[in-house]
Amino acid sequence: MTETRFMKMAIDIARQTIGQTSPNPVVGAVVVYKQHIVGIGAHLKAGEDHAEVHALRMAGQKAEGATVYVTLEPCSHTGRTPPCTDLLIQCKVKRVVIATLDPNPLVSGKGVQKLRAAGITVDVGLLEQEARTLNTRFFHYITTHTPYVTIKSATSLDGKIATATGQSQWITGPAAREDVHRYRHQHDAILVGVNTVIQDDPRLTTRLPEGDSKQPIRLILDSHLRTPLTAQVIQDKSAETWIITTQHPPKETLAKFQAENIQIISMPGTTINLEPLLKILGEHGITSVFVEGGAEVNGSFLRSGLFNQLILYMAPKLIGGRKAPAAFGGEGFAALEEALPLTITSVTTIDSDLKITACKKEKT
Amino acid sequence: MTETRFMKMAIDIARQTIGQTSPNPVVGAVVVYKQHIVGIGAHLKAGEDHAEVHALRMAGQKAEGATVYVTLEPCSHTGRTPPCTDLLIQCKVKRVVIATLDPNPLVSGKGVQKLRAAGITVDVGLLEQEARTLNTRFFHYITTHTPYVTIKSATSLDGKIATATGQSQWITGPAAREDVHRYRHQHDAILVGVNTVIQDDPRLTTRLPEGDSKQPIRLILDSHLRTPLTAQVIQDKSAETWIITTQHPPKETLAKFQAENIQIISMPGTTINLEPLLKILGEHGITSVFVEGGAEVNGSFLRSGLFNQLILYMAPKLIGGRKAPAAFGGEGFAALEEALPLTITSVTTIDSDLKITACKKEKT
Repeated sequence: MTETRFMKMAIDIARQTIGQTSPNPVVGAVVVYKQHIVGIGAHLKAGEDHAEVHALRMAGQKAEGATVYVTLEPCSHTGRTPPCTDLLIQCKVKRVVIATLDPNPLVSGKGVQKLRAAGITVDVGLLEQEARTLNTRFFHYITTHTPYVTIKSATSLDGKIATATGQSQWITGPAAREDVHRYRHQHDAILVGVNTVIQDDPRLTTRLPEGDSKQPIRLILDSHLRTPLTAQVIQDKSAETWIITTQHPPKETLAKFQAENIQIISMPGTTINLEPLLKILGEHGITSVFVEGGAEVNGSFLRSGLFNQLILYMAPKLIGGRKAPAAFGGEGFAALEEALPLTITSVTTIDSDLKITACKKEKT
Repeated sequence: MTETRFMKMAIDIARQTIGQTSPNPVVGAVVVYKQHIVGIGAHLKAGEDHAEVHALRMAGQKAEGATVYVTLEPCSHTGRTPPCTDLLIQCKVKRVVIATLDPNPLVSGKGVQKLRAAGITVDVGLLEQEARTLNTRFFHYITTHTPYVTIKSATSLDGKIATATGQSQWITGPAAREDVHRYRHQHDAILVGVNTVIQDDPRLTTRLPEGDSKQPIRLILDSHLRTPLTAQVIQDKSAETWIITTQHPPKETLAKFQAENIQIISMPGTTINLEPLLKILGEHGITSVFVEGGAEVNGSFLRSGLFNQLILYMAPKLIGGRKAPAAFGGEGFAALEEALPLTITSVTTIDSDLKITACKKEKT
C-alpha cells in the first residue's frame, strides 16, 4: 500500500513533465527514509539532470539507507550526464524500486544488474503499466526508431470534418480546441498536408492559456511545393517549419523556401511514402508526430496503417451532405473485413463535445 | 424517501411494458396501505384495463384508505374503458400521488380535479422527469399528432455506414444489432428508403433472442415504386408493409402491390415531403417511427429537421475513403452555423461498440 503510494507519487510527478523532456522519457523519483519522503525529483529537460540526481540531491545525507522509487530503470551508462547507478551506489541507498525497465534492448536490465552487484536490493514492476503508459511514445520510438504517430480529428456526430462548401472552423468548442493545443505541446512535430495550409493558412503553433508552450516542428507534406510563400507557417517564424517534398519541384523553387529558413526534405521519387518518411523523421530525433490532416493525409496514414493512436473530437451536431468530407479520405478500404480495427481507450466529454481516444488494435 | 421508492417501483413496472401499449402510454401503479404494498398494476395493452384498475383489483378491500402511486394522471373520461378516477373514488382511496399530468391539453388536470372534488388528497410531480421520459414518444404524439421519429445509424469511428464498394454488413457487432431489435420492438413503424430494400433486401422485423417480439409496420419510401415484388418485405408477410409513393407510378403498378396486400400511401405531387407524410402517419395511429436509412433518407430527415432522436452505434474501426458513404447524405448544410445542434443524452459501450444517444437540441 505505502509502496504503491510512493511510486504513484513518482508517476504523478513525471506525468506533469510530459512534453518537455523529448527526446528523453519523462521520469519521476521519490526518496523515502523510514516512511518519510526525503527527496523528490523529475527529469526536466534533455541534457539536464536525471530524476534520481535531483531527488538524491534533495535528500542529501538522508539518502543513506533510504529506498528510492523511480519510474524508469536508472541509467548505467554515461550519456550527456554520468550514470545514475553510480550516484545511487555512492549515496549508499539501501533499496531501489523500479516501475519499468529501460526499453532500449541494448541497456535494459543493466542498471538493475549494476545496483544488485553493489549490494542494493532492487525490485522491478511496481505500477509497471502506468509507468509504461507515461512514456508510450518514447518506448515506441526507442524500440522502432520511428516517431509515435497520433492522428487527431474533429468531426460532427455524422463524421464530417467540414461542410460540403468546405467550412470547418470551428466544428468543436473552445475547450476541445484547447485540448488540441495540449497535445501539440506534448509532441515533437505537427504534420499537415499542403491543402490544409492553402485552405486554412493555420499557424500550427501551441497556444495554451498558461503561455510558454513548446512549439513543435511544423511538417508540411507537399510533393509539388505548392505551399504559398506568404503562408503563416513560412512567415511567422514562431516555430520551425519543414517541408517534405519529392523530386518534382525544381531547384529554384526549393531555394525560395530555403531563403526563408525552411528546411526541405526531398524524398526520392515523385510521391511521398510514409514509411521512409517516418524513418527519416526518426533519424532527425523526432519521437512523436501529431497528424492534423486533412482528409487525404489522414487517408494515407490509414491505408498504410502507419499510426499508433487516434484522438477524435466529436461535436454534438449533424452536418450531413454526400459531398461533405469525412476525417479519412483517399481510397479507403474496399472490403469491410479490411477496415482497420482499433481499441477504444477512453471516451470523455469536453464541454458539450465528445472525446474518443483509440489505439490501433494489437495483432494477436 | 419511502414515497420515492413506491413511485420508482411504479415507473420500473411501466418501463418493462415499453413497446406493448401503443398507441397508449406506458403506466404503472402501486397501492400502499400502512407502508405495505397491497396492489401493483400496469397498463398492458391498448383497449385493456388501465394500470390503476389492475392495482386496485389486486388490493381489493385494502384499497380503502390506501395511497395510490401512479406514473400518469388517472383518466377522467370514458374511452375504451371507464374512467379510472371513478374507480379510485369508489374504492375510497385516501390519497393519490401522480408523477406527471396527462399531456393531452384537453384533459390535463381534469383527473386531479375530479379526485380532489371527491375529497381525495392528490399530489403531483413526484419523479416527474423520469415518468415523462418513459413516455417521451407518447407525449410527443399526443401533443403534435405526428409520430416521434428516431434515426438509427451504425458507423465506423470515421462516420462511414459502408465501404466505397457498398459493403455494410456488418459494421457493428451482434450485441449492438440486438439492441437495434429492442428499439424496433418499441416502435410502431420502421422506415427505410427503397434503395436500402433494393441493395440489402432486409427483413426489417424484430428478432429478439427471447422471441415473440412486436412486429412494427414496415414503411418504404419509394416515389417511383421500384421496390422489387420479390423483396422479403413484400413476400414474407411477417409484418405489415406500407409503401409511401407519389403520383409517379401508374395504377397497374400499384395494383400489383395491392394484390400482395401491401398498403400504398400515394402522396400528392412527384416527391415525398416528410411533413405531410408524418401527419398522415399520425392520422393512421402511428405514434413512433424508427428510421433505418439509408443515407439519402436520413439526409432528408436531417434537412427538414423532422426527427427527435438519434441513436448512433459506432464500431471501433476505420473504413476511410472519399467515396464511402456517411450516415447523412443529400445536400447537407452548406454553412457550419446551420448544422443541426443536438444534445448528447448518453454514451455507453455495447461490447466493443459505442452507443451514442442524442436528441435534437431544444430551441431556447
